Amino acid sequence: MRVVVAPNSFKGALSSPLAAEAIARGLNRSGLECELDLMPIADGGDDTMEVLVGRHGRVVETEVYDPLGRPITAQFGILADGRTAVVEMARASGLKLLEADERDPLKTTTYGVGQLIAEAIKTGCRRIIVGVGGSATVDGGVGCLSALGARFLDRDGRRIPPGGGGLEQVEQIDLAGLDPGLKAVAIEVACDVTNPLLGPDGAAAVFGPQKGAGPGDVARLEAGLDRLFGLAAERLGVEVRREPRTGAAGGLAAGLKAFLGARLLSGVELVLDQLGADARLARADLVITGEGRIDAQTLGGKGPMGLLDRAKRYDLPVVGLAGSVGPGEERLIEAGFSAWLPICPEPMALEEAMAAAESILEAAAARLGRLLELGRGLGRA
Amino acid sequence: MRVVVAPNSFKGALSSPLAAEAIARGLNRSGLECELDLMPIADGGDDTMEVLVGRHGRVVETEVYDPLGRPITAQFGILADGRTAVVEMARASGLKLLEADERDPLKTTTYGVGQLIAEAIKTGCRRIIVGVGGSATVDGGVGCLSALGARFLDRDGRRIPPGGGGLEQVEQIDLAGLDPGLKAVAIEVACDVTNPLLGPDGAAAVFGPQKGAGPGDVARLEAGLDRLFGLAAERLGVEVRREPRTGAAGGLAAGLKAFLGARLLSGVELVLDQLGADARLARADLVITGEGRIDAQTLGGKGPMGLLDRAKRYDLPVVGLAGSVGPGEERLIEAGFSAWLPICPEPMALEEAMAAAESILEAAAARLGRLLELGRGLGRA
Repeated sequence: MRVVVAPNSFKGALSSPLAAEAIARGLNRSGLECELDLMPIADGGDDTMEVLVGRHGRVVETEVYDPLGRPITAQFGILADGRTAVVEMARASGLKLLEADERDPLKTTTYGVGQLIAEAIKTGCRRIIVGVGGSATVDGGVGCLSALGARFLDRDGRRIPPGGGGLEQVEQIDLAGLDPGLKAVAIEVACDVTNPLLGPDGAAAVFGPQKGAGPGDVARLEAGLDRLFGLAAERLGVEVRREPRTGAAGGLAAGLKAFLGARLLSGVELVLDQLGADARLARADLVITGEGRIDAQTLGGKGPMGLLDRAKRYDLPVVGLAGSVGPGEERLIEAGFSAWLPICPEPMALEEAMAAAESILEAAAARLGRLLELGRGLGRA
Repeated sequence: MRVVVAPNSFKGALSSPLAAEAIARGLNRSGLECELDLMPIADGGDDTMEVLVGRHGRVVETEVYDPLGRPITAQFGILADGRTAVVEMARASGLKLLEADERDPLKTTTYGVGQLIAEAIKTGCRRIIVGVGGSATVDGGVGCLSALGARFLDRDGRRIPPGGGGLEQVEQIDLAGLDPGLKAVAIEVACDVTNPLLGPDGAAAVFGPQKGAGPGDVARLEAGLDRLFGLAAERLGVEVRREPRTGAAGGLAAGLKAFLGARLLSGVELVLDQLGADARLARADLVITGEGRIDAQTLGGKGPMGLLDRAKRYDLPVVGLAGSVGPGEERLIEAGFSAWLPICPEPMALEEAMAAAESILEAAAARLGRLLELGRGLGRA
């Protein structure tokens, strides 16, 4: 029996590669007779770089500006092929880089992401995967594009201020200074959400508040995004405002698509393709996935759900381990998962469970292995 | 496939019969193809009466004295055969009847247990099962025996004071007034522990403190028990002080054995025999048990462990569901359990888990069923 061990990140507690190893240890001591294929996954957000770089790629460090323009060290990855780079936007422009009281999407920018892309181009990469998720920004990608040489100007021909608050002043877009290296580069955006740029499901309304936007700010951000991409439609003939995924990363996805021709893809689909999931699933009998918390949001298209869809092609059962199994458990079964198993050994505080994630996940995987082996025995009787 | 569903009590949260029903509901909606045989168990402590009375016996209410001599309503059960009574000592003399600041084994007595036994004799029962566990007393059974007509006297021929504190004054034992009905009655004590009466593993040293005894009290209780059962050995020729199980219920087990010829049995063994477990296990393919908390103590001989031993006779796998799986999990597997599955769906407070026990147990049983069914499918492939 061949088992693909393909957890997503246990957000805030355990990266997906470490989760895969913990699950493998648990299964190995459970008595379940099987061969394991460790294939940690990501959905464009946490761990996307680490998962894609794997053991044979490499990580490059460079200095960039954080969402508020302060210098920080960030990383991007170069895959084993030497021609594909992976940029996690959260490493340059992520919410995790800010204190709670620094959150303000009127001011925060994606400039650092553009710097990472520019560095990746310099290394000779011809394909750049931009993982979104965890962004601190709602600037429509203006910061990123500015770092790559574009200019966004107000009615007086001056650069608009950085951050989402500047968008409402944009009158003119000048792409003449764009990094010429971009011409030979294909950009793919690994999106963890399908939200469109505008409207009640859009970047400002849905994600603005968690990035620090108050109700009045949301309206300003919405108007600014509409203005920017209205100009793009008018001047460049590229209309992206109602397209799915353009709302990812505060409209960075929209900006990369409208101004650089990027393709907006499902993060998990892109990652699975990159990992050669089809060939690996085709040889397997069972898939074990994992996630920090499983709830209604997970049904919306995150890692395990994408993996489930892929596994269905091969008629493979998928079982999950979760730090927290929310009220949507029955819906997960209806969606096609064989089972979800929570990993808490006993009543405990969330902080305690997160601190012990590695060991309690291992123990839960051992239980899962034991129950599957027990079931196999019952089946054979 | 036939599954025996045989949980113990989820102490303080869910009785074993309700636990069995919750597990059955979960399995029924899991897709596991099986027939269920509900056989909730007990170990002499919680739920022993309810489990043995089952659907065809009856419960009798009567007025007795609580551990501090206050009148309360208590119950005993009469089994379907009409000739066997079951008396849970905790209903008359249990710790649960006292406020925390009322705990004092120097004063608390087993008088109420004797009253329940006397009532059971009046109904015509010829066999009385006394379930111990949860006692508030360390009186060596003197209260119980007094209610049945025995007299324990000091050097002046006066009755010694009630409670464990009076034992050190005992000089004389007068059994002449014992209820004559006792002659035709066999008493079996369903013990939940194997501790002897005296010594470092004895009734005073191990259980005294949780019943409210301070360090000085423990020494007095130990000396009193030694004195009482030394007299029994001297005058009646019955030496019980080092025998296993005589330490159960603060020496009530010792008193019933020494003065009434009771048999001291493993509570779970007795319950399993009474439930016809052998015939039911012989027809089964799998046993599912349960317990509020599984830890090192459970390995010492409580319900699920006794059930495991019995299931081994029939080469049956046993899997458990627990509110809390403690650090002894690997030892449980080494002991022969196939697996233990904790039931918490996510990090939560103990009180929250206990309040939701019925629904989270049902959900966990559904997961267990799904994983076994998945395993069966893998086995058949």
